Amino acid sequence: MESRENIFFNKVSIIGVGLLGASFALALREKGLCKTIIGFGRSEDNLKRAKERGIIDDYSLDVRKACEDSDLILLSTPVGAFRDIAERIKDALKHGVLITDVGSVKGRLVHELESLMPDGVHYIGSHPIAGSDKSGIDDARADLFNNARCIITPTEKSDELAKGKIILTWEAVGAKVEVIDPFAHDEIYAAVSHFPHIIAYSIVNTVGDVDSKYIGYAGKGFKDATRIALSSPEMWRDISIFNKENLIKMIDAFRENLDKITKCLMENNASCIEDEFLRAQTLRKKLK
Amino acid sequence: MESRENIFFNKVSIIGVGLLGASFALALREKGLCKTIIGFGRSEDNLKRAKERGIIDDYSLDVRKACEDSDLILLSTPVGAFRDIAERIKDALKHGVLITDVGSVKGRLVHELESLMPDGVHYIGSHPIAGSDKSGIDDARADLFNNARCIITPTEKSDELAKGKIILTWEAVGAKVEVIDPFAHDEIYAAVSHFPHIIAYSIVNTVGDVDSKYIGYAGKGFKDATRIALSSPEMWRDISIFNKENLIKMIDAFRENLDKITKCLMENNASCIEDEFLRAQTLRKKLK
Repeated sequence: MESRENIFFNKVSIIGVGLLGASFALALREKGLCKTIIGFGRSEDNLKRAKERGIIDDYSLDVRKACEDSDLILLSTPVGAFRDIAERIKDALKHGVLITDVGSVKGRLVHELESLMPDGVHYIGSHPIAGSDKSGIDDARADLFNNARCIITPTEKSDELAKGKIILTWEAVGAKVEVIDPFAHDEIYAAVSHFPHIIAYSIVNTVGDVDSKYIGYAGKGFKDATRIALSSPEMWRDISIFNKENLIKMIDAFRENLDKITKCLMENNASCIEDEFLRAQTLRKKLK
Repeated sequence: MESRENIFFNKVSIIGVGLLGASFALALREKGLCKTIIGFGRSEDNLKRAKERGIIDDYSLDVRKACEDSDLILLSTPVGAFRDIAERIKDALKHGVLITDVGSVKGRLVHELESLMPDGVHYIGSHPIAGSDKSGIDDARADLFNNARCIITPTEKSDELAKGKIILTWEAVGAKVEVIDPFAHDEIYAAVSHFPHIIAYSIVNTVGDVDSKYIGYAGKGFKDATRIALSSPEMWRDISIFNKENLIKMIDAFRENLDKITKCLMENNASCIEDEFLRAQTLRKKLK
């Protein structure tokens, strides 16, 4: 394994200074792992605030400039922007630069980004499981990744040294790294994250369709069940589109469960309903 | 309105000593609103523990005996047991006794229970919104109803004096009372509570169907979204069966939302997806 000295970065670029990008910057700085951090984003106001708060040292509104001479680039915009950013920066990069991201989808996207990059530029995907329904710098904090799982999704083409450095960097900011194939990653996170988001948004919309005033009667159960429906529509739009094949499979499997419950209800089959609820409760109990 | 002196109860019967029944007993005692509290339940072990902890003064394994001479009876078993209990106790009740419950379904059940009762026995339904995925006495506490909403569902036949006393009693233990028609109650709570429970159980079962090992990758979003799938299968079986017409309507409306999202995904229609997510986010933000 690499030693800590090998993961000191002279210049770091944070492409998209939101909750995850800003927290990564704060964590790198706190751990003394970098000299200068440059931010890039769509909103100059946001970049100014990030600079004022010491999250970034400076910023550029030109993504190529923000990435020039960088030793580590973090893509932390909505995933739908990754490919365009990669296209724009690929010819302006320093030999040996590491590029990673915090995107919730990997799969094909990882292979595409990797193949876009010239020789000597190492892109390896990451997915730290540290997001929330919040998405701005106001909630950023240096310990956001502490004890968080971080999935790294190298391919058969990934450079071993680069992979080692990416892993060490995430570990240095407190994350627990796990290496998973990009496509396997997308299947898993369709199930435990992307699909539940679609369901949560749909629960709220269904109540809205029936009578939006009813929402005022919701208790803690409803609030918890739909908290993720507060998440950024733009970010989840991109995730949903990029992982749509897996999502459609999940929704189909979900429909079968709904059909089963509906049938039990129509038949007044109390024991079938209890069995289904018990099966869910038993599996859910495995999660601490 | 009634004064506090009119809601002192000599004997109170708690039929089903779980989270809500035990908390009601603790609250009544703390507020000095009763002399003796008798418990009834299926498990003598549980009743013994409740007695040892001072939640109830004594218990009976005979529900008629538990209700004899009572001034206030709280039905706090799963709702599926209410009718049978009412049948068994109705001829053993003191003239003027108040009976209420903590059930999550009202509608037809309230009318049935009311019509079972002899003259001078006043049944009026209640639904304190204070339950959780917990259901035992270990989580009971005197302040459980503090600031909780409590829906009271009188009918056109309800005795005004009895209604006033039920309201005062819930207010005395800290609840904010709202009076709603029994059928309207069931429509509202199908939407904001019963339907989300069915969905949460179904989310977990769907992940189990696809690959139960995936559950180990779940983050906070999944945990929150499915916390209510930890709820008692027996209790929610009864609620689901009793409110099945409203539930089936909700599930149908939900299917339409799922169909819409699936169509948008298949067509790669990013703006349609973002619009749907934004619509949900906007409504969900109204909930504090």
